[in-house]
Formats: sequence, C-alpha cells, structure tokens
Amino acid sequence: MNYFCNSKILKLLNEYSSKLLESSVNELSRLPGIGKKTALRLSLYILKEDRQYAEKLGNAIIDMRNKIRFCKRCNNISDSELCEICMNHKRDENTVCVVEDTRDVMAIENTAQFNGLYHVLGGIINPMEGIGPNDIAIKQLIERINKEDIKEIILALPATVEGDTTNYYIYKLVKEFGVKVTTIARGVAIGDELEYTDEITLGRSILNRLPFEI
Amino acid sequence: MNYFCNSKILKLLNEYSSKLLESSVNELSRLPGIGKKTALRLSLYILKEDRQYAEKLGNAIIDMRNKIRFCKRCNNISDSELCEICMNHKRDENTVCVVEDTRDVMAIENTAQFNGLYHVLGGIINPMEGIGPNDIAIKQLIERINKEDIKEIILALPATVEGDTTNYYIYKLVKEFGVKVTTIARGVAIGDELEYTDEITLGRSILNRLPFEI
Repeated sequence: MNYFCNSKILKLLNEYSSKLLESSVNELSRLPGIGKKTALRLSLYILKEDRQYAEKLGNAIIDMRNKIRFCKRCNNISDSELCEICMNHKRDENTVCVVEDTRDVMAIENTAQFNGLYHVLGGIINPMEGIGPNDIAIKQLIERINKEDIKEIILALPATVEGDTTNYYIYKLVKEFGVKVTTIARGVAIGDELEYTDEITLGRSILNRLPFEI
Repeated sequence: MNYFCNSKILKLLNEYSSKLLESSVNELSRLPGIGKKTALRLSLYILKEDRQYAEKLGNAIIDMRNKIRFCKRCNNISDSELCEICMNHKRDENTVCVVEDTRDVMAIENTAQFNGLYHVLGGIINPMEGIGPNDIAIKQLIERINKEDIKEIILALPATVEGDTTNYYIYKLVKEFGVKVTTIARGVAIGDELEYTDEITLGRSILNRLPFEI
C-alpha cells in the first residue's frame, strides 16, 4: 500500500471511485493516528461486511456522542447522573484522586489499591494545543473542596511538562483550603533494570528513597 | 497505555464507565488493525470533538454502506450505474486489467501508464478465509469476454499464493476464448539494491530478463 502518497488518495477517489467512499475516508481520517490510507482500508472493510455492521458502528458513534453523560460529581463518563464509583457508599469520600480521563480511572481501579473517589479533569493544561485551566474541570474540583469533606487530593496526572504544569496549578489553588496534596510515586518500574531506566526517573527515585521494609 | 490488557477493557468500561462508550469501543474494535485500546482512544477523541463530527462520521459510514453502487460493467465502486472509466470512450476497450479492489485501480491510474478498462474482482481466492471463485466477480469477467470485444486480459493481482491461485484459475477459464492473457512484470523494484531483494524476486527477474534498450 505504498504506491501513492496520502494527499493524492482523495483526488484519486474523487476521480475514479465514489464520492460516498471519499466522504467516509475523509471523516475516518480525522481520527487520531488514522491517515488517508488506513481510512481507505477501513472503509473497504466496512463495505465488505454486511449492512448491519455499518448501521451498528455508525449508530454506536452517534448515540455515544449524543447520549453520554458525565457524572455530576466527579466528571467521569457515566450513563447516569452519578457514576458507579460516586454512588458507592463504601468508598472513602475523604480522598479524591485527580486524573486526566476515564482511562486513568479504569487503570487505577484495575490495581484495586485505591478506595477513594475520583475527579476527572477531562484533559490537562496544554498551551500548545490551546487548552487552558478553564477548559478542564478544575473549577468543579474547587467547588467539591468547598462543598465536600475532602481531606486529601492525590494528583495522578501524566509525568510530562503539561502534567507537571497542571499539578502545580492545582496545588496553588488547593493549598489555601488546608487540604493535603500528594502525587503518585515516580520511580523505577517494578521488573525494570536500572541500566535501562532514564536518568531523570532514576535520579528522582534516589532522591525520594524510602525506608526498607520487610 | 500499557497498564491493562486488551480483554479487560470491556469489563472495566462496563463497571466503571458507560455502556454507550463500551458499545462504541466494541464496534470500532471489529475494524481490522484496531484493538480495544485504540478503539477506546478513538471513542474518547470522538467524545471530545463537537457533536457534528460524530454525526458526520456515523452518517458517512452508514450512507456509504447503504448507497454505494458497483459499476455494472467492471464492478468498481461507483456513484452511478457505470463508473467514470467505463463511461470514458477514449479508453481502449480491448484491454482489460483484472485487479483485486478499487485501491489497485487507483494505484494503476496514478501511474498514467494504462489506458484500458478494468475488472475489479472484489477479492481473491482464499480458501483459508472461505473465499471461493464464486465469491468474487470471476463469472462477470467471463460474461464480459463473451459480450465485449476483449483482446487482452492483464492479470494484476497480488504476488501471493492466493493471487497466484486466482491468476491460474482465471487463466484456465479464459484460455479457451482465445484471449491473450498477460501478467504484470515482477522483478527488482526501481531504486532497490540487489543485495536486499529477496531471492525469489531476484531469481524471477533473472529468468524473465529483457533485451537491453537505450
């Protein structure tokens, strides 16, 4: 599939094939990581499958976008007003873990090591992509601190410049409320060789060393 | 994104997130080369974009599947009864190039070296995937040979076992009509080093050597 370049596909589709196919390729290739060639491959696959599949796929996408709700409390994706986690009274309501999106909730839940609530920002501060503090759910977090009895906020954002910026921004806002702010531990991953760990991670893991426990 | 395995994503989505999101992930991950994780990433992207995009994408897929037509003559994807190429009277109607799908038509048109018509099989014989001669447009090709004034058939199918099987099958059917059957040249690609060419391609290119022309 390397015989013609990406930009030429739409022209060729328009001239020698179908405008309907062209429009499907166009829309699919707006998805991240999907170029024109992959979009064409996917479209031809959909054409080969039965009609039901195209209906199901198309409607699943439209329904999801139109009907999905966000938990009123933690902003996580949910089918109801409050998400399953916020509705669960067995969870520790004094600890709130701040994450970027619903994938991070799933990842932390999967560890079974956290019993508090979440706050899903829906993004992190990223000036390069035009995402400022008002575009993500930081205001809602402050409202929760005002209303609820939150004792600790765990920042579990990506270890990137954008993640650190967002951490710092939230920390500055939250500290005047007297809430304890922690971040998840960064260090050498379990199973990793020291030799192959990058110097910043290794350096930080030495600075943040812990007492040895048996 | 390597923190939980593929099969667990649907369970986690069901428990901690939304059934609408789960269904979108489910349908997207049926596409070739798209796993559960990628499907989740794409779904979250669609959720972040405005509603119009989801509508456009969903409808483009459904419309394409429901409204697309195939050229009555060459079986290429088309918006009308006959495709642009079959409708073009400047093209040589005596030469027909047999290809697997519409991508190959686009690739050959892109070279501007072929002025004949096409015949799109819509697949190649592949017993492993249950695709037999009756599942692809071989019967329509024989009908065309009967009806039209075809003098040469160029086989331009993939250089795989399945492609060779299909070539052989078509050759056996076509030869009794006295039509000339050719295949596209296989050999060392232009710009390639001999050193890195696989031995079968290199061997064939020596057997099929051509007189040197200036």
